[in-house]
Amino acid sequence: MAHVTATPASSGTGAVWPRAAIIAVGSELLGTSRLDTNSLLITERLNALGIEVAYKSVVGDDRAQLTSAVRFALDTVGLVICCGGLGPTDDDLTRAVVAGVLSLPLVEDESITERIRELFASRRMEMPAINRRQAMVPAGARVLDNPRGTAPGLWIEDGDRAVLLLPGPPRELTPMLAAAAEDLLRERSPDRSMVTRVVRITGRTESHTEEAVQPLYAEWARADVPVSPTILASLGQIELHLTAQAASTDRAAAAAEAAAAQVVEVLGPDVYSVDGRPLEQVVGERLAERRWRIALAESCTGGLLTSRLTDVPGSSRYVETAVVAYANSAKVSLLGVPQALLDEHGAVSEPVAIAMADGVRTSAGADIGVGVTGIAGPDGGSAHKPVGTVAIAVAFPGSSCSRMFRFIGGREQVKFQASQAALDMVRRQLAR
Amino acid sequence: MAHVTATPASSGTGAVWPRAAIIAVGSELLGTSRLDTNSLLITERLNALGIEVAYKSVVGDDRAQLTSAVRFALDTVGLVICCGGLGPTDDDLTRAVVAGVLSLPLVEDESITERIRELFASRRMEMPAINRRQAMVPAGARVLDNPRGTAPGLWIEDGDRAVLLLPGPPRELTPMLAAAAEDLLRERSPDRSMVTRVVRITGRTESHTEEAVQPLYAEWARADVPVSPTILASLGQIELHLTAQAASTDRAAAAAEAAAAQVVEVLGPDVYSVDGRPLEQVVGERLAERRWRIALAESCTGGLLTSRLTDVPGSSRYVETAVVAYANSAKVSLLGVPQALLDEHGAVSEPVAIAMADGVRTSAGADIGVGVTGIAGPDGGSAHKPVGTVAIAVAFPGSSCSRMFRFIGGREQVKFQASQAALDMVRRQLAR
Repeated sequence: MAHVTATPASSGTGAVWPRAAIIAVGSELLGTSRLDTNSLLITERLNALGIEVAYKSVVGDDRAQLTSAVRFALDTVGLVICCGGLGPTDDDLTRAVVAGVLSLPLVEDESITERIRELFASRRMEMPAINRRQAMVPAGARVLDNPRGTAPGLWIEDGDRAVLLLPGPPRELTPMLAAAAEDLLRERSPDRSMVTRVVRITGRTESHTEEAVQPLYAEWARADVPVSPTILASLGQIELHLTAQAASTDRAAAAAEAAAAQVVEVLGPDVYSVDGRPLEQVVGERLAERRWRIALAESCTGGLLTSRLTDVPGSSRYVETAVVAYANSAKVSLLGVPQALLDEHGAVSEPVAIAMADGVRTSAGADIGVGVTGIAGPDGGSAHKPVGTVAIAVAFPGSSCSRMFRFIGGREQVKFQASQAALDMVRRQLAR
Repeated sequence: MAHVTATPASSGTGAVWPRAAIIAVGSELLGTSRLDTNSLLITERLNALGIEVAYKSVVGDDRAQLTSAVRFALDTVGLVICCGGLGPTDDDLTRAVVAGVLSLPLVEDESITERIRELFASRRMEMPAINRRQAMVPAGARVLDNPRGTAPGLWIEDGDRAVLLLPGPPRELTPMLAAAAEDLLRERSPDRSMVTRVVRITGRTESHTEEAVQPLYAEWARADVPVSPTILASLGQIELHLTAQAASTDRAAAAAEAAAAQVVEVLGPDVYSVDGRPLEQVVGERLAERRWRIALAESCTGGLLTSRLTDVPGSSRYVETAVVAYANSAKVSLLGVPQALLDEHGAVSEPVAIAMADGVRTSAGADIGVGVTGIAGPDGGSAHKPVGTVAIAVAFPGSSCSRMFRFIGGREQVKFQASQAALDMVRRQLAR
């Protein structure tokens, strides 16, 4: 997540776009449950090119409203990026509305029809007739390939202004946006660059992080290349975003990197990555370096810990096996936890977590074993061991460590924080 | 997810506001990491009063941009809600900009100054001079008390239009919004209510869903209580949101429910819930009803399937155990898959998926076993079995079913779609 992108001087022909507007299209984004998150991805790309976001808006699948939003945007900034509303259905209006505002006719692009037909054929299906709508494009638009879906993107230049239409689903939008940033957007981007470094932190609260880091803020604000920090905290995870702005990408990148190094100096091993890598990837890389294999015994995390580790490409090299054992009987039969230990300490205890970690390590023939046992809630808590109580152990050849935690939040938050704490214990052990 | 809210008749004086716009103010909301979430709280309140959100926008602390955003909003809708930018510092511009757009002078409200002074005094501090800015209000504005901070809210009526200014921090905004909704907003809210039902669907593409459902759209649009549909699709999951608007909540709820029933009639068992419940919960409820316990053998899903099932509170009643076995040797030793089967058919094959499902069911003593084996990518694919190829089997006492899938997308998408398909196979079997 260190965006290091060379920004050439603008080409000289045509105006540069110092500012852009983002319009997210879709009635579902105007309800009570969904937020437009694409604008964050788009902002990241624009900022990397030195383009500021002047404002962003969310509009429903409503022709009149979308029309006035597009018109207002084109009156305000040089570059307008719309996402969503490119699907094949009646309420997908973006193509038609943008064509209308720019007074361009819609024409069928046969190559798009053909590509969509092939996409359906590859899944052994016939193209539904309505998908033909996706081939109707404003005359003169440049068609942007969508390798991950049927909706192509579109790029329309109109004098000094340009409109980029992207599909709504993030996995379709992301590669198309990356390609457009390298090519179309770069062409007239301003002669400056912003670089952001994402520092990720565990084992502290937001306020303790802020307290430790704050003395650096004034120094960063005064520097030749100023760096602005933003702290983002959620349960089990803290991120510090460091954004530097300079005339050249190299200078901005160097300033952001230097600021990240200062944070590492202050926070020490609580920082697990300075380039946005998630914890499961950091742990995976350390396991791979050592050629160690890991086995997992999960109770309250219910498979989440293993699922996070296996989200990382290539994780089959180091994830040996995992057992999810909710019931005490399963802890005994599958993991070899002695019944006496369960009777004496209870299932949620450090001795049981250690026995789980040892048991799965031995039976799988792995190098490291992890045991997690706790109360994810909402039921099952007691005065002595309330919901959120979790015991975690990591077993190595000839040694083990264990710790009790008390997490807050609902069931999914407890699961996540427990998986995060387990990964972090493995990480710190591997760093020794 | 059925929003059922009583809406009284409007008072009859003055125009009603069928639609509102929300403007979130703050440069930090235009960066790469923070989203405006206040608009969700505001939308919930507005919808409960039958007021639709026409659009929403996010604007930085920029006088020109904020001015044109407020002007545009007042030209578009009767009710404009701004949040943020009410603090005491130079970059808090909302009060001044709104006063400017409405051509109202800013005047000091002594009672606000006094209240802020008291607030500081209660913390044994003197009021900093800049806080006096917060007492400057557009002439004629009604001041809304902020029990949790220094920034008062403001309510400004201008003929048939009204502007509500709320502070940015959610804990300050929430009580002020609740009070305003009960009083100021209700007064001229339309005499109607909106109810949304979320229908969830598997086993079809978006286009095939739309094609099947589309004949209903015209009927819904023409009905006494019109219902408007929105389709939301992501890999492995389709949602149809049905929103009905009527004079009474009962009528709106009945229309939304009737529309959902029509969708079920058309799509049959491809619909798994009409109230937004996720698939893992539907499957869990069916297992609990039958008092059946499930055991899982996961390869390419790497624990995700079990993690989703265990996200549901109370799932320990029916999730017996799970084994994540990546390596062939683990499939043989932990799940009892015959080596000969692996040699003959390969690890990603229906016979191996069946053997995994059978093996885990038998060893766990569960009622149902599930086996998932596939290639999540990005490596490991071949011409014959490309990345995304997944075999899934469900074993019952005395019978089993299995199926090959070919999913698209990256590693995490393949994992998710495979877990979704496995849950769906279990659901369909349990429905027999």
